[in-house]
Amino acid sequence: MSIGDFVHEEIPTAEVDRLEVVYAGLADSVRDLVDATIRTTVDDETIRRTQAEVGALAERLRARQLDGPAGVRFNSEARSWNWGNAVVGLRNALAPPLTLVRDEDGLVHADTVLGAAYEGPPGLVHGGVAALLLDHLMGETASAGHTRITLTGTLTMRYRRGTPLGPLRLESRIDREEGRKVYVVAHLADPDGITVEADGVFIVPSWAV
Amino acid sequence: MSIGDFVHEEIPTAEVDRLEVVYAGLADSVRDLVDATIRTTVDDETIRRTQAEVGALAERLRARQLDGPAGVRFNSEARSWNWGNAVVGLRNALAPPLTLVRDEDGLVHADTVLGAAYEGPPGLVHGGVAALLLDHLMGETASAGHTRITLTGTLTMRYRRGTPLGPLRLESRIDREEGRKVYVVAHLADPDGITVEADGVFIVPSWAV
Repeated sequence: MSIGDFVHEEIPTAEVDRLEVVYAGLADSVRDLVDATIRTTVDDETIRRTQAEVGALAERLRARQLDGPAGVRFNSEARSWNWGNAVVGLRNALAPPLTLVRDEDGLVHADTVLGAAYEGPPGLVHGGVAALLLDHLMGETASAGHTRITLTGTLTMRYRRGTPLGPLRLESRIDREEGRKVYVVAHLADPDGITVEADGVFIVPSWAV
Repeated sequence: MSIGDFVHEEIPTAEVDRLEVVYAGLADSVRDLVDATIRTTVDDETIRRTQAEVGALAERLRARQLDGPAGVRFNSEARSWNWGNAVVGLRNALAPPLTLVRDEDGLVHADTVLGAAYEGPPGLVHGGVAALLLDHLMGETASAGHTRITLTGTLTMRYRRGTPLGPLRLESRIDREEGRKVYVVAHLADPDGITVEADGVFIVPSWAV
């Protein structure tokens, strides 16, 4: 796998929308299987039998597939899709997936519910998962809704307390800009308040100005 | 799901070892299915049929299961297992899983190969995935092989360049300690060198001294 480019793929937007429903269904079922694989207590024989059947399903899907990762694709109607993305990719069972909402006042937020697959300490969200989700939200915030290219420079997380698995909210906004530097602040919160704070410096590359 | 404790479960170590082989087999097949779900280009009908079968397999596994997340368990032989962990959990298809190696000189390292499920920008590891893996490695480093409890205080990532999907190495070590603060430095590298640097401050809680 090598460093790829954004790929122009001429699929009409209506067809992209239709495909998303089909693919999201499969990915949701795989997410459910990931959770069940962690939590099941069925006997060994059932585990082995299930493993063989999962293997056969993967083989069926691989009968025709992309050579490498999904990348980011777009059509001439300016519709783009990054179905494989580790945080927002709707075909990626690792992604919750996060749905970002851009509010009118510049705040970007996302609501999600994290289960067993995102655990670190017992019953708590893995600290690195908090960083994973916040990193993505902040990058999207810096790029101002993909109206400009920004690269992550530095990212700092401050862990105030453990984040329980369950319903969570992420919020992010641009704090200030200085030349080609965009300063973003963000946090992760459970229903009782903020658990992790983050700030990041994003760079608009000189070739993109 | 609530904040859990470490659970004492009296399974003999030899049986834990045996179970790990069974469960790791299933999780590896699910990892393969996650990748295939991202990359497949088979027709809609095959996708829908596969979705139904994946759902049936998850239902079979759920016939008997834990009420919540896997947590961290241990037996009276001081063998512990955290099979659900988002980074090192061998039953968690989201985890690569990372295998940490503690060298004699205090360096902790891990080698891994990241595929399509860990993508951010086209062909590159998601910046948040780099943070996820480094966070875990650094926490383990601070805890000195689980000989003490440490909580993550702050974590800073500096992105030097994009990290290509493929073979990667992570390294981490304790830089210094001041009272109850443990300073850890780490990096992620591809075959050409370092791509992300990190440093973190970990706290030994006062009740644990």
